[in-house]
Amino acid sequence: MMKKVRIGLLGAGRIGKLHGENLAHAVPSAELYAVADPFMNDATREWAASMGIEKCYDDPEKIFSDPSIEAVFICSSTNTHAEFIMRAAKSGKHIFCEKPIDTDLNKIREALAAVEEAGVKLQVGFVRRFDHNHKMVRDTVASGKLGAPHIVKVTSRDPDHQSMDYIKVSGGIFMDMTIHDFDMVRYLAGSEVTEVTAYGAALSGAGYDQYDDVDTAIIMMKFENGALGVIDNSRAAHYGYDQRTEVHCDKGCVQVSNDLNDMSMISTAEGVEIAKPTWFFLERYNNAFISEAKEFTEAVLNDTETPVTGIDGIQPVKIALAAAKSLKEGRPVKISEVE
Amino acid sequence: MMKKVRIGLLGAGRIGKLHGENLAHAVPSAELYAVADPFMNDATREWAASMGIEKCYDDPEKIFSDPSIEAVFICSSTNTHAEFIMRAAKSGKHIFCEKPIDTDLNKIREALAAVEEAGVKLQVGFVRRFDHNHKMVRDTVASGKLGAPHIVKVTSRDPDHQSMDYIKVSGGIFMDMTIHDFDMVRYLAGSEVTEVTAYGAALSGAGYDQYDDVDTAIIMMKFENGALGVIDNSRAAHYGYDQRTEVHCDKGCVQVSNDLNDMSMISTAEGVEIAKPTWFFLERYNNAFISEAKEFTEAVLNDTETPVTGIDGIQPVKIALAAAKSLKEGRPVKISEVE
Amino acid sequence: MMKKVRIGLLGAGRIGKLHGENLAHAVPSAELYAVADPFMNDATREWAASMGIEKCYDDPEKIFSDPSIEAVFICSSTNTHAEFIMRAAKSGKHIFCEKPIDTDLNKIREALAAVEEAGVKLQVGFVRRFDHNHKMVRDTVASGKLGAPHIVKVTSRDPDHQSMDYIKVSGGIFMDMTIHDFDMVRYLAGSEVTEVTAYGAALSGAGYDQYDDVDTAIIMMKFENGALGVIDNSRAAHYGYDQRTEVHCDKGCVQVSNDLNDMSMISTAEGVEIAKPTWFFLERYNNAFISEAKEFTEAVLNDTETPVTGIDGIQPVKIALAAAKSLKEGRPVKISEVE
Amino acid sequence: MMKKVRIGLLGAGRIGKLHGENLAHAVPSAELYAVADPFMNDATREWAASMGIEKCYDDPEKIFSDPSIEAVFICSSTNTHAEFIMRAAKSGKHIFCEKPIDTDLNKIREALAAVEEAGVKLQVGFVRRFDHNHKMVRDTVASGKLGAPHIVKVTSRDPDHQSMDYIKVSGGIFMDMTIHDFDMVRYLAGSEVTEVTAYGAALSGAGYDQYDDVDTAIIMMKFENGALGVIDNSRAAHYGYDQRTEVHCDKGCVQVSNDLNDMSMISTAEGVEIAKPTWFFLERYNNAFISEAKEFTEAVLNDTETPVTGIDGIQPVKIALAAAKSLKEGRPVKISEVE
Repeated sequence: MMKKVRIGLLGAGRIGKLHGENLAHAVPSAELYAVADPFMNDATREWAASMGIEKCYDDPEKIFSDPSIEAVFICSSTNTHAEFIMRAAKSGKHIFCEKPIDTDLNKIREALAAVEEAGVKLQVGFVRRFDHNHKMVRDTVASGKLGAPHIVKVTSRDPDHQSMDYIKVSGGIFMDMTIHDFDMVRYLAGSEVTEVTAYGAALSGAGYDQYDDVDTAIIMMKFENGALGVIDNSRAAHYGYDQRTEVHCDKGCVQVSNDLNDMSMISTAEGVEIAKPTWFFLERYNNAFISEAKEFTEAVLNDTETPVTGIDGIQPVKIALAAAKSLKEGRPVKISEVE
Repeated sequence: MMKKVRIGLLGAGRIGKLHGENLAHAVPSAELYAVADPFMNDATREWAASMGIEKCYDDPEKIFSDPSIEAVFICSSTNTHAEFIMRAAKSGKHIFCEKPIDTDLNKIREALAAVEEAGVKLQVGFVRRFDHNHKMVRDTVASGKLGAPHIVKVTSRDPDHQSMDYIKVSGGIFMDMTIHDFDMVRYLAGSEVTEVTAYGAALSGAGYDQYDDVDTAIIMMKFENGALGVIDNSRAAHYGYDQRTEVHCDKGCVQVSNDLNDMSMISTAEGVEIAKPTWFFLERYNNAFISEAKEFTEAVLNDTETPVTGIDGIQPVKIALAAAKSLKEGRPVKISEVE
Repeated sequence: MMKKVRIGLLGAGRIGKLHGENLAHAVPSAELYAVADPFMNDATREWAASMGIEKCYDDPEKIFSDPSIEAVFICSSTNTHAEFIMRAAKSGKHIFCEKPIDTDLNKIREALAAVEEAGVKLQVGFVRRFDHNHKMVRDTVASGKLGAPHIVKVTSRDPDHQSMDYIKVSGGIFMDMTIHDFDMVRYLAGSEVTEVTAYGAALSGAGYDQYDDVDTAIIMMKFENGALGVIDNSRAAHYGYDQRTEVHCDKGCVQVSNDLNDMSMISTAEGVEIAKPTWFFLERYNNAFISEAKEFTEAVLNDTETPVTGIDGIQPVKIALAAAKSLKEGRPVKISEVE
Repeated sequence: MMKKVRIGLLGAGRIGKLHGENLAHAVPSAELYAVADPFMNDATREWAASMGIEKCYDDPEKIFSDPSIEAVFICSSTNTHAEFIMRAAKSGKHIFCEKPIDTDLNKIREALAAVEEAGVKLQVGFVRRFDHNHKMVRDTVASGKLGAPHIVKVTSRDPDHQSMDYIKVSGGIFMDMTIHDFDMVRYLAGSEVTEVTAYGAALSGAGYDQYDDVDTAIIMMKFENGALGVIDNSRAAHYGYDQRTEVHCDKGCVQVSNDLNDMSMISTAEGVEIAKPTWFFLERYNNAFISEAKEFTEAVLNDTETPVTGIDGIQPVKIALAAAKSLKEGRPVKISEVE
């Protein structure tokens, strides 16, 4: 009989349910055993039953204290991540934690120290690393066949505005949205960012400036290995989720365009229409969410390193802090200034 | 609690397991309850357990005689399809049957008559109708916005040769492989084929001519609505599963190219490389298999017509018979000649 | 000083002027010296002056009898082609002749015999062979790197209907339009067509059936080398000039899509729009017309074989005759039946 | 008879000959009458004869002093541009001048003042504005149908390294190469650049650092209208001339990819290959060179404004100076700092 990792799920909101369904149906090496959510109710219990989950709690402690549970998926609100990591680590459980661990570097460091001390595995939920497109770019760069990377480019645009209620508490575009891109450029370049310069503006009229935030940004960066990089962001592409990456290297260039809804082309006297990009992250990164959960459970089963570790949990936060400082102060900011 | 359709699976070979996994994990409206396979063994029992299937039989009769089972998936060998359809119909069970129902028109007619008499639902497994690409072509044509269809084109090439042991008993390229395309042209044109002319040749040197078969074919056809059509087939594309469709209409053209492994482009002094098409039907029609199972269970639950009915089970077989006759006799053959 | 070929142009209609402008401006090895047109007038004389043409005649004999003229471009009406070829051959002039030489095989044979006897060079104006796209397909097949050709496909659709006045005297779709495609399949396959089966229909409602003609056709064919082929034609694509070719070979496939007006993509909430194909042959084959004229003059200067010879002038006419016979009689027709 | 502009060509090097050939053959409204080059020799005289040019001089004064000449094309070395503009202006001749006018802002201002005073027309050779792709981006933005521009992106990579002898005297990447992109972003955004931040590095190992120059650069910018922009440059793409532009606007995005050598796709077991981008500016901007010459002569004939005026001659130089200063000083630089 196949060995499985018994998992407790912390948080049964949108992202918790997404992970729960993948663990239940698409990750053969996982046994999703328990779920804890402070707002546990009948609907969640019914959902849990349909997923074959045996235990439903409102107190996460029930999961930490169950010795049969080997690993947790932390999908609760961001402000609980660091604390839950520490409690899981102390209980000797392996940890998958949604991004970001925290927006405070000291809290992240404390959480990572607990993980280190306990000797448990940690994987941070930078799901885009598991997308077939971005992975192709990274693997091509990492193979060395194109030589050293020179220019790393990421276009990352959300399909449409979030509500201003969300924006108000989002932590700003760099911490909320670009953080994925900061992880991506590190992943693609295979090197750490050393400096950023950020330009940003509220151009859409949707009201980001009320909260001292921007809807449009371009961020340049330098990498330790000498490469240069640039990210361009928009909160509202309107045509779908625009997620393109490109690395120009010493001997050539690898780039990926968006996954499309289909591969159609309709040609008439009026024009030629092709399909739009997939709408948002649920559509685009559907398979990537499954892959990251599989790779986590396999790392646990085989006692190998997780593909996204503690360092990946803290570096993007530093870059986001530096980008925010650069935008505010109108100057290049070195990562060392915010550490 | 959501209403579910209790299903018995007949046949646990490759295609049976594929449907079983989809029913267990990806079709919320299905309850996969029992499986019967003449070669039932421990491995299949273990697989069934992991899918949450309660009953494992070697005798299909156990499924037909269980009044709690509302529907069956017939995934057994082709020569059992017609008989199983009749037994299921007599037991009052709704039927999903893999293609083809049979290669003998009279047996198909007998099976369809039993379905008719019992008033049960029947869906035939022409999975490509549920592919996002082909569906886009069909929906565009059916919408009427391009006007009447004039030219219907299907390119359908398998990635590589089957073994000659398989070819020997396959029934020939038209019944084994092109039958999917014969269904596809009817689906795209929204009209019945009235005549075909087939050209074929064994060009690969793989030995198809030993069995009076061909590896390469082009088939032209006429439709009742006046449109013309053409299918081109190869047993060995080598670069993947080449599945393109196109309909040129009175006001323009809709066409789809292949799904690719990713959306990458690698550019160097040596050339520019993009990703290959997905390898074969498991990769290309993965989501389509889930969709067809979902639509079947929903048709059962909602008592609506299934999306692929009895007529769709018999017409492609007629076209395949006519195509074989055309190739043999070197002349156009009307469908009415083989009915 | 560079050696040039002194050329006389026969016919100053649309296609004559097109060749004249290319010879004057874009073919350094040509000296366009004289033009003859039965409807010579002031406008044509002014055009000729602007092209640097020294002599304007209404009598073509003035060109045939001028010993300083080494080559002629026959761009007059089709019914004069065979006769002009014979007169040019007798005058010892090399000949570029627009397609078709004639629609009567005996007249073509007579003209080719005169060319043969005089030992002059003949090039027939199958301009598509000089298109960068189709040439890429042919060169890839001819290189042998994909192995033997199995399936040869040509999609050829004009952008919009010709006037019914034109259709009435056009000689029918196969002789007027598909003849280019019949040349193309021979060029791509590197082999002669041995049999065709043609399906055709008047579906547009534009009135082709009044003249016993069709606006939509599909033609299947067999080649001497065993390959199979198919052409699909429409008189009215509406979205532009649809000129795609594809050859599937033993080891893979080479295909070309259309040249587009530009490489743009406009993405909005409404959809994603790309550019249309170029509108018609003037736009699509602009550079190909220049290349064919260059290659002709270079063949004359270097005394090498022209790239499109007499055999290429007669074979497509045979295929067109066979296709018309097939459509009329509803059966496959061997080329040997019409020779 | 069509009215023509009589033109004198100053400089018969590579770019001078290119303009000369276009004026002689592809611009019906131009009469290329004279050429002056300090290194006038037999080869140039023979070239001039073949272009139908009547007068060949080594002294440009012969052109300025000929009252029959209405316009000049200044294609001489950059250090002569400002002086020749002034001499042409004083002679009352309209001026097409290759870019850049000069690298010294005061010299440019002096030249523009002379043009202004003389009331002659000036067009600066920013040829990319006439490319079908970039023009499509600009026209789409300018139409307003996508709303205000938010993000302006230019990728501009040369196919391969220039010789270090050239680099030594090139004036640096921003003045030599990026200057075209600085013009392009103004053209696309329809707004002036107000600030730039430049990152650059010598990563290729080809030796740019010896001359205090870089081979790789990313430049961010702000525009008066609030938009943000970014350019990425490489001296050596290796796969061809990479010239892509994109503008993300309030309602969507318009982008263009590269013109390719052809529209082919070759698919085998080894992979799928498409054509490379055209190699360099002669291939890519061939038609754009013709269009800019046509538009210039038409502006002269019709007494309308030229499409690229004096302001377009000075602004990109300012941006290049600001970018160089930014790279040197490691900070954002406002355009007003270098004016």
